[in-house]
Amino acid sequence: MPINKLKTYYLSKNESQLLRSLHRKKERYSNNLFLIEGIKPVLEAVESNFTVKSIYISDHLSEHVKNEIFNLYSSNNINIIRESELRQISTMKTPEGVVATGEINLKIDISNNLKDLPGIYLWKINDPGNLGTIIRTASWYGIKNIFLSPDSVDPYNPKVVRATMGAFFHVNIHKDKAFDELYNDLKNQNVIFYSADLNGENPEMLQLKQNSILCFGSESHGTPEYILNKSDKILSIPKFGYGESLNLGISVGIILNSIINGSLKK
Amino acid sequence: MPINKLKTYYLSKNESQLLRSLHRKKERYSNNLFLIEGIKPVLEAVESNFTVKSIYISDHLSEHVKNEIFNLYSSNNINIIRESELRQISTMKTPEGVVATGEINLKIDISNNLKDLPGIYLWKINDPGNLGTIIRTASWYGIKNIFLSPDSVDPYNPKVVRATMGAFFHVNIHKDKAFDELYNDLKNQNVIFYSADLNGENPEMLQLKQNSILCFGSESHGTPEYILNKSDKILSIPKFGYGESLNLGISVGIILNSIINGSLKK
Repeated sequence: MPINKLKTYYLSKNESQLLRSLHRKKERYSNNLFLIEGIKPVLEAVESNFTVKSIYISDHLSEHVKNEIFNLYSSNNINIIRESELRQISTMKTPEGVVATGEINLKIDISNNLKDLPGIYLWKINDPGNLGTIIRTASWYGIKNIFLSPDSVDPYNPKVVRATMGAFFHVNIHKDKAFDELYNDLKNQNVIFYSADLNGENPEMLQLKQNSILCFGSESHGTPEYILNKSDKILSIPKFGYGESLNLGISVGIILNSIINGSLKK
Repeated sequence: MPINKLKTYYLSKNESQLLRSLHRKKERYSNNLFLIEGIKPVLEAVESNFTVKSIYISDHLSEHVKNEIFNLYSSNNINIIRESELRQISTMKTPEGVVATGEINLKIDISNNLKDLPGIYLWKINDPGNLGTIIRTASWYGIKNIFLSPDSVDPYNPKVVRATMGAFFHVNIHKDKAFDELYNDLKNQNVIFYSADLNGENPEMLQLKQNSILCFGSESHGTPEYILNKSDKILSIPKFGYGESLNLGISVGIILNSIINGSLKK
């Protein structure tokens, strides 16, 4: 059945409440669901290994885009709803006309699968836009695994998912991973730990090691001592002008480019 | 007179209205004033070449910080006001207790001062946080001049100033600069124009030329044809994984690092 034959319907009160409850972390985990917003992220999710439970499309969206989604999504859980209702379930001020729900997919252990390194460890990252941009950048450089310390922003926060521009569905995100736990899991398999901090080595001079983890502290507090102490090497981006620090996402991008792209000519 | 002898006073209705009006672009330019918010940005502004007109400090701020500001700022235009009033004049949800007004300082022409290159040209940048982060990053790499095309976000937007983390006061920002105008001003002085776009050269392979301008298009539209056509070289960050594009600030950071830091080992 082509999508233009689907009837526009009103969301039930219960369904609308459930969708709006997913704006909050607690409800996301109690329902094991998260929101995916926007045309491109929803298409990326449908084509990925994530399970997309339902898709909600505004009756204002063009037939062309409606059909693109319909052609890719094999489930029946596709619903044309009124624009006014879509605005209510969306977290965006000007939603793009598509919202979907996906199943939360918590990755726990990679210690049996070290071929998917290098990975990134982020300590107490709290800005959702920053995390989303880092995931997008990491994916560009072929990073498969991103580990988040406890007390980091929830990776299933809709702002994180959106800021990744679809890359969210191409990486594995491991949340609530204490550094010591990761270290103990991987160190006896000869994984190398690098940390970004002050007074370290210029990453442009570094050869990338496949079996490595790159650790980044928070923008306000840097990388904590207990992580630095266990690191094999400390990396610092040299300063050529003025400033106290770089934005965390920028630092991650520069270091990844230096050791992955820059190593082409080393 | 030490600052703890200054009396806390109520802002007049007129003064409060003027300060709040600076949240809007039109009023900033009609008054030739902009807001500087937060302890560090205000201290940086006071120590820079910018003219800081007045400083407003919350009565809740610690004596230590009050005295730090008072010791640096030689003018009499320093005012202790009530916290509730400071919240009204600030654009931040949780202001840091200090707001200042600075004089807008529009840089027009650098064609007589080419020693302050390389510079950056940004075409239709519209996100204030992104622009602020780019200014912060450019300053880290010693860039002195940043040019903005017409239809870019106002660089004196309080969100831009804040996101630069003080770097705002260390660079010259030239707004409303059409590319052709900049090109005509500088090309006959042998300035080289680089543009970031698809299908270009890897910036890691590039030697930085002092007398150059690096041009960046917008994240959604890329770099327009008329800029690419006049560029001496196109630069592209190679992709090693998955993604359609990188965030604009990340791209600027990676390219600056590649050609400035990376050229150390070329």
